[in-house]
Amino acid sequence: MTEKKYDSIRPIRWDEALHQLQLIDQRILPQREEYIYYSDVHAVADAIRDMVVRGAPAIGITAAYGVVIAVQNRIAAGSDDWQRAVEPDLEYLGNARPTAVNLMWAIERMRGRFAEVDLRDPVPELLAEAHAIMNEDIAACQKMGEMGAELIEKGSGAILTHCNAGALATGGYGTALGVVRAAVEQGRVDELFADETRPWLQGARLTAWEMIQENIPVTLLSDGAAAHLLKSGKVGWVVVGSDRIAANGDVANKIGTYGVAIAAKHHGIKVMVVAPTSTVDMSLASGELIPIEQRSADEVFGAAGERIAAEGAQAWNPAFDVTPAELVDAIVTEKGVVLNPTTEKMAAMMSSAN
Amino acid sequence: MTEKKYDSIRPIRWDEALHQLQLIDQRILPQREEYIYYSDVHAVADAIRDMVVRGAPAIGITAAYGVVIAVQNRIAAGSDDWQRAVEPDLEYLGNARPTAVNLMWAIERMRGRFAEVDLRDPVPELLAEAHAIMNEDIAACQKMGEMGAELIEKGSGAILTHCNAGALATGGYGTALGVVRAAVEQGRVDELFADETRPWLQGARLTAWEMIQENIPVTLLSDGAAAHLLKSGKVGWVVVGSDRIAANGDVANKIGTYGVAIAAKHHGIKVMVVAPTSTVDMSLASGELIPIEQRSADEVFGAAGERIAAEGAQAWNPAFDVTPAELVDAIVTEKGVVLNPTTEKMAAMMSSAN
Repeated sequence: MTEKKYDSIRPIRWDEALHQLQLIDQRILPQREEYIYYSDVHAVADAIRDMVVRGAPAIGITAAYGVVIAVQNRIAAGSDDWQRAVEPDLEYLGNARPTAVNLMWAIERMRGRFAEVDLRDPVPELLAEAHAIMNEDIAACQKMGEMGAELIEKGSGAILTHCNAGALATGGYGTALGVVRAAVEQGRVDELFADETRPWLQGARLTAWEMIQENIPVTLLSDGAAAHLLKSGKVGWVVVGSDRIAANGDVANKIGTYGVAIAAKHHGIKVMVVAPTSTVDMSLASGELIPIEQRSADEVFGAAGERIAAEGAQAWNPAFDVTPAELVDAIVTEKGVVLNPTTEKMAAMMSSAN
Repeated sequence: MTEKKYDSIRPIRWDEALHQLQLIDQRILPQREEYIYYSDVHAVADAIRDMVVRGAPAIGITAAYGVVIAVQNRIAAGSDDWQRAVEPDLEYLGNARPTAVNLMWAIERMRGRFAEVDLRDPVPELLAEAHAIMNEDIAACQKMGEMGAELIEKGSGAILTHCNAGALATGGYGTALGVVRAAVEQGRVDELFADETRPWLQGARLTAWEMIQENIPVTLLSDGAAAHLLKSGKVGWVVVGSDRIAANGDVANKIGTYGVAIAAKHHGIKVMVVAPTSTVDMSLASGELIPIEQRSADEVFGAAGERIAAEGAQAWNPAFDVTPAELVDAIVTEKGVVLNPTTEKMAAMMSSAN
């Protein structure tokens, strides 16, 4: 990893002394900055489900440490066959959230090490693997930041983002916000517009907080104001992250991304999706096959812990939508940039060397 | 006015005994249903600015009663030239909010009566004029409901609306929600989807409350979920109100309408705008000329009275956007339906008999 100017946030930490995972509690940011300690794999899975940690790469990293904790505890409990004993733990962990493919990707990568590690003392090697997953993610974010920023011409205007694809959604530096950080450092962009991103308000709470930590100017808007902003001529690029990218370049991301992409296309503004290859699911031919998590109606009924909606209404609360590849101008992964993505171009990128 | 099945809400009342205006406080709905009493024109103007009452037709009706109150008080104060004395009151009232043209329209209509009424006892005639404005609005809503519903084929799916263009935004029955009421009564539509409509959450609070009063099934969604819903095939029509319509059929409406209209066009779903002719401003050639109110950043920073956004962020909070006529399939006024609006068709509709 190289030294970056805007790189001050690490949402996931491993406490070497306690052998515990620490996660910054993203449910209470920005009002409070608190790390929660985890020493139980079920608690780690629940933290993913309850969105203590969120964002596809961060979910993957957290799951990797969750596997370490699961093995550690099975061995401490005296299991004579930890490889078999942890399987229910991994299954519970894998079911925490359905859309981000990084969750299964990280568990599979950790499981792949089971046959290679010292069977009587596997934890040090598994922990090293989890550390590697995190460090590779941060390095990937920094590399994607550079590559994505190069696509943005100086003077082309501000960036609009949706949700939080930042340091908080990764090991650090961020995917979409990694591009913002690099573009600001390179003097290509001065300002970020951030959709507040209902119902969970990741934009208002997390993206704004991240940018303020870095002293990058950030302006919030209601999600409904995005089309009006795109019409104004102030924005040159829409830059977002992804929770799963299909083999043809269709992109699942936080609900609302699809509408922003349609409005961007309508105004001739370009759309960039930034995600590590651990987010790409080559087993799914198109975005139609990506499972979309439906979350509780209560998230729509309220805000700030208060009930707002009229009693008696229903609510429909899909957590993600799918933006078809035709609306995406560039997909940026750590392996390279795919312009106007197609199945062929995605396959070529995935099979290329790093 | 005819008897309608779904017509139980009257947000604006005149108390004959007290000679005071009553407004249901839309800031605290649906948690509490309270009417506030007004006997001062400045307080009426502030009620419009602070959104005790909102919605273009309701703002116009409220302003008409505000003129009655202004004249009443000037006479009670012993003014020997009430016509001149009320002018500062009317100016204050007219500046309460900039986008809804109904505000100025209603004040001008009331002022137009000044030369005709009994100069020594003008209040009864002016009050009758305000009552007429309200009753004509309710009748117009019922007529628009019928005409709009006729455009919707049975079995074409649910309606999606944005903000609250309902009974609460009018004298009663509503514009967009008048079409919903009529379409449900006629068995053309079974269900309404309602964008929650940040930052003020008129959809979650007001549209949901209205529909529940009428026992019409209503499902809320985050504004960002609208494009994903339109893709699903569940929705046959987007039906919205308007705060000002330009001579060419460009439509100003609550922020977020433009993005929904773009997404509807993208999916081949039709867009209907429902508004009385008091909302049409033939003096403005196009929507580019409609003044767009910028409201306080605090509305974006919080929800339910709680600060949510990270400290240090900016916010951009336009209250309205403009949907160009090309994205509108039908404008429904009490004078008739204009399909694929143009300047010529709008002029023909406006000059036609009722």
